[in-house]
Amino acid sequence: MKENFVEQIADIEKDFPQWYTDVVLKTRLVDYGPVKGTMVIRPYGYAIWENIQKEMDARFKATGHVNAYFPLLIPMSFFTKEAEHVEGFAPEVAVVTHAGGEELAEPLAIRPTSETVIGNMYAKWLQSYRDLPILINQWANVMRWEKTTRPFLRTSEFLWQEGHTAHATEEEAMEETMKMLGVYKEFAENVLAIPVLTGRKTEKEKFAGAVATFGMEAMMKDGKSLQAGTSHFLGQNFSKAFDIKFLDKDGSQKYAYTTSWGTSTRMIGALIMAHGDARGLVLPPKVAPTQAVIIPIAAKKGGVIETCLKIKDDLEKAGVRVVLDDTDNSPGWKFNEWEMKGVPLRIELGPRDIEAGKALIFRRDTLEKGEYALSGVVEEVKDLLEKVQKDMLEAARKRRDARITSADGIDGILKAVESGNFVKAGWCASRECEDKIKAETAATARIIDDKLSHKKCACCGKPAIYTVIFARAY
Amino acid sequence: MKENFVEQIADIEKDFPQWYTDVVLKTRLVDYGPVKGTMVIRPYGYAIWENIQKEMDARFKATGHVNAYFPLLIPMSFFTKEAEHVEGFAPEVAVVTHAGGEELAEPLAIRPTSETVIGNMYAKWLQSYRDLPILINQWANVMRWEKTTRPFLRTSEFLWQEGHTAHATEEEAMEETMKMLGVYKEFAENVLAIPVLTGRKTEKEKFAGAVATFGMEAMMKDGKSLQAGTSHFLGQNFSKAFDIKFLDKDGSQKYAYTTSWGTSTRMIGALIMAHGDARGLVLPPKVAPTQAVIIPIAAKKGGVIETCLKIKDDLEKAGVRVVLDDTDNSPGWKFNEWEMKGVPLRIELGPRDIEAGKALIFRRDTLEKGEYALSGVVEEVKDLLEKVQKDMLEAARKRRDARITSADGIDGILKAVESGNFVKAGWCASRECEDKIKAETAATARIIDDKLSHKKCACCGKPAIYTVIFARAY
Repeated sequence: MKENFVEQIADIEKDFPQWYTDVVLKTRLVDYGPVKGTMVIRPYGYAIWENIQKEMDARFKATGHVNAYFPLLIPMSFFTKEAEHVEGFAPEVAVVTHAGGEELAEPLAIRPTSETVIGNMYAKWLQSYRDLPILINQWANVMRWEKTTRPFLRTSEFLWQEGHTAHATEEEAMEETMKMLGVYKEFAENVLAIPVLTGRKTEKEKFAGAVATFGMEAMMKDGKSLQAGTSHFLGQNFSKAFDIKFLDKDGSQKYAYTTSWGTSTRMIGALIMAHGDARGLVLPPKVAPTQAVIIPIAAKKGGVIETCLKIKDDLEKAGVRVVLDDTDNSPGWKFNEWEMKGVPLRIELGPRDIEAGKALIFRRDTLEKGEYALSGVVEEVKDLLEKVQKDMLEAARKRRDARITSADGIDGILKAVESGNFVKAGWCASRECEDKIKAETAATARIIDDKLSHKKCACCGKPAIYTVIFARAY
Repeated sequence: MKENFVEQIADIEKDFPQWYTDVVLKTRLVDYGPVKGTMVIRPYGYAIWENIQKEMDARFKATGHVNAYFPLLIPMSFFTKEAEHVEGFAPEVAVVTHAGGEELAEPLAIRPTSETVIGNMYAKWLQSYRDLPILINQWANVMRWEKTTRPFLRTSEFLWQEGHTAHATEEEAMEETMKMLGVYKEFAENVLAIPVLTGRKTEKEKFAGAVATFGMEAMMKDGKSLQAGTSHFLGQNFSKAFDIKFLDKDGSQKYAYTTSWGTSTRMIGALIMAHGDARGLVLPPKVAPTQAVIIPIAAKKGGVIETCLKIKDDLEKAGVRVVLDDTDNSPGWKFNEWEMKGVPLRIELGPRDIEAGKALIFRRDTLEKGEYALSGVVEEVKDLLEKVQKDMLEAARKRRDARITSADGIDGILKAVESGNFVKAGWCASRECEDKIKAETAATARIIDDKLSHKKCACCGKPAIYTVIFARAY
C-alpha cells in the first residue's frame, strides 16, 4: 500500500499517552482489531518484529536452544496443578467451551503462557539424565484477557517467544535463568539500543509459580519503566506438578529443575517510548524496516533520478534496507513522513548536489545534516548506521542515568516518580510496606538492586533488607 | 535432548498408515498433544518447518508481499456475512464463550482462516486506487475442529501461511491467483523435491466463498493424492460482504477484487509420504535439518576424531548443516538411526580410510555408497547435496508419471485408484456424477486437467466438458 500522509501527532511534552497512540496509529505500526483489546500488527510494525525475531532467534540458537511448537489449547485442569500459577493466570484466561458444533466435555484455555502444556510433554519425553538438558524455545501467540489495553503494551493477544528448559540440577537451572537474562540484556542494548536494568523481582511482582523471577526494566521518555523481558527460575514447582522426572546416574528417580523466559511484541512499545521524539518514531538501524530513504530534489532535472537509482542499487548490494521515495509528493512532505516513521538516515539529492559530487545525509536521531562525497556514499551510510546504533544507546543511557535518584522516605519516592525518575530506596522486605508504597506513590518495586545502599526501609523505617528500584510502570 | 533410539517401524509395503505413524513419532518429528486432535511439533519437525518458512517467505517477498499479523479471535457474526463461507467453516469452528472470568456478549471464533477479519481491516484501510494492490501474507496458527485427525495431515490446530490480496481489477486479481499457484509449484518442486499437478478445482472441492480455487496435488508413495497448497480467486465475494471499496481514477466507488492462498505444516506430511522408504524418512537437502552426519568408525584410534572434527568444521564453514555423532553407540546403531531420520548424506571415517586419504559417503536417497578423496570432501558433499536434491525430484516425478492412467468408466476409475494411481477421466461437469464417482470409488476430483482428452463422462456417458484427474486423497 502506498503511504501518502503527513498528519499531526500530539505534543510529546504535553500529552505523552496521546503522542504514543498517535504515533503507533499514524505510522501504521498497528491498528485496533474488531474484538475489543486486540491489535492488528500492520506491515510496518510486523517488519520490526521480524527483525527482532531474527536477531533474537540467532542468539537462542547460539546458546544451544532449538525451536518447537506446542498446542494453543490447554485443558483447564492443567492450571489447577500448580497452585500459584492458577491463581495468577485463571482470571485472565479465554476459554473455549464449544467446538465442531458441540459442547466440549472439558473447557479449554487459550494459552496465556505454556509452562503447563509443555511441562506435560516434558514429563512424557524425559526418561534419563542423558535426555537433559532440554532446551526448547517457542515463537507463538498468547492470550491474556485484560480490562485496559494499549497497542503493543497490553493487548488480549500478543506475539512472543517463550523458552522452557529442564535441567538435572538446581545450579544448572539457575545458570540458565541468568544466562538468558544476560542474552535479553545484550539484545536490548545492542539491538534495540535500550539500556536496561536487570535484577530479581520481589515476591509480589514475580511470575505466578516461579521460585524467583528476574526482569529487565527500561526507562521510557516519560520516566516510567517498562518490563521488557523476564527470566524465571521455576525450581521443582512445575516438575512436581507435572511429574517431570528422570532416572539419574545414581539410579534414583529425581524431579528436574525448570526455567522459563519470555519477551514479546511489548518490546516494540519500548522502542517507541524509549527513543521517540516530537516528530514521531526514532528507530535504531538494526530493527528499522527501512534504514535509509533517498529523497530526490527537483527529480525531473536531468540525472537526478538516475543517480538516486544508482545509489539505491549500490546500497542494496551493500545490504542496506533502502527506499527511494519517487512519489509526486513535495520534498517537505516526504521529509515529515519519513521522519515520523523513524527512518535512521535520509539521503537528499538534487541537481546541484550531483554537480558538486555531494549528497546531504540527515540523521533522524540527532536531527543533524551533513555533506558527504557522492563517490563514497555507500561506505558513509554504512558507517553512519553503525554510529547511529551506538549513539542511540549512549543517548538513552545518559537520559536514564540522569533520572535515577535515591530516597529515604515515601515522600521522596513520590516526588521522584512524579518528576519522572526511577528511585532507589531501602525496603524491609515486607509485603505490607511494598503495598503501602504502591498505594501512596503509584510506584512499584521494579527490581531489587545488586547493592544494599540504603540502611532503612523508606516506608516503616526498620532496617532495610534490600535496596529496591521503584518506578511507575507500564 | 540426546536421541538414543533405534526402533522398528512398520513395513511400508504392508501397512502404509502404520508406517507413517511410526515414522513421524519415532523420528520425533511430532507428538500427540494432550487435547484430542492436537499435535506438538517437536524440534526435529519444527526445524523442517523453519527451513520451509525461510524458503517460502523469501519467495513471497521477492513477489512484492509483506507480512502482517491479524487477531486470532473473530466475532462469530463475521462468518455469516459471506453465505458459502459460513456454511463451509462454521461446523469446524472452535468457539470462545468466556474470557476474563465473564461470559462474552458475542461468542468469538478461533480463526479457521482469516478472510473475514482481514476483509474487515482492508475495508477500513482502503480508500483510493492509490492504496492498491494490497499484498499481505500472514504466518499463523489456525484451528479447524476435525473428527478424524493425523499428525501434520489433519489436526485441529496447524501452522500455515495465508496470503490475502486486494486489487483494482479482476484481471490483476486473477493474475495474482495464478502467480502464487506458480510460486507454490516452483517451491514444491525445487525445495520439497515433490512434483505437483496444478489446476482448477471443481465447484464441490473449491474453497468456501471463492469464485475459483486452484490447487496443487502431490502423489504419495501409496498412490494417494495430497493437496499441498491452494490459491483462491475470490472475485468480489468478500469485498461485497465486508465493504472493501475504493475511489477509482474515474471518481466512482468500486469493490476490490481479492485473492487468498495458503500452505501449511501439511507439507511436512507430503514430504514424509512422497519420499519415505522402508528405513524411514528421506529428506531433500534444502529442508533437512541435518544435511550430513559424520560417523567415526573405531573412534578411539588415533586421529579419527580429530579428522572428523576438522571435516565438520570445514563443512559448517561451507554452510552445510552437519552433525558429528560421537556418542558411544555402535556404528550400526548410528547408521540405522540417522537413516530413519532421513539425513541426506552420511560420511563414514575410520583409521584405514584416513590412512588411505579417503572417506565413504552414503546417499540416503539411492542407498549408494561411494569413496571420495578426503582432501576434496567439502566440495564433494556440496555437489552431492545438489545432486540428491535434483535426483529426488526426478525419481518422484518418474514414480508419479508411471502411475497416471486413464479410464472411460467408473469401473476403470475404481481399478486405477485401487492399484494406487491417479486417473484421468471425462466428466460432464454435473455434481451428481462427481458424487457418484466418489461414492463408488472413494476417489475425488483432484483437479481439472488443462486438456479435454476424453469425449464422454466416465459416469453418465454424456459428452465430457472436462477431463478431470481423480484420485483417493488425504
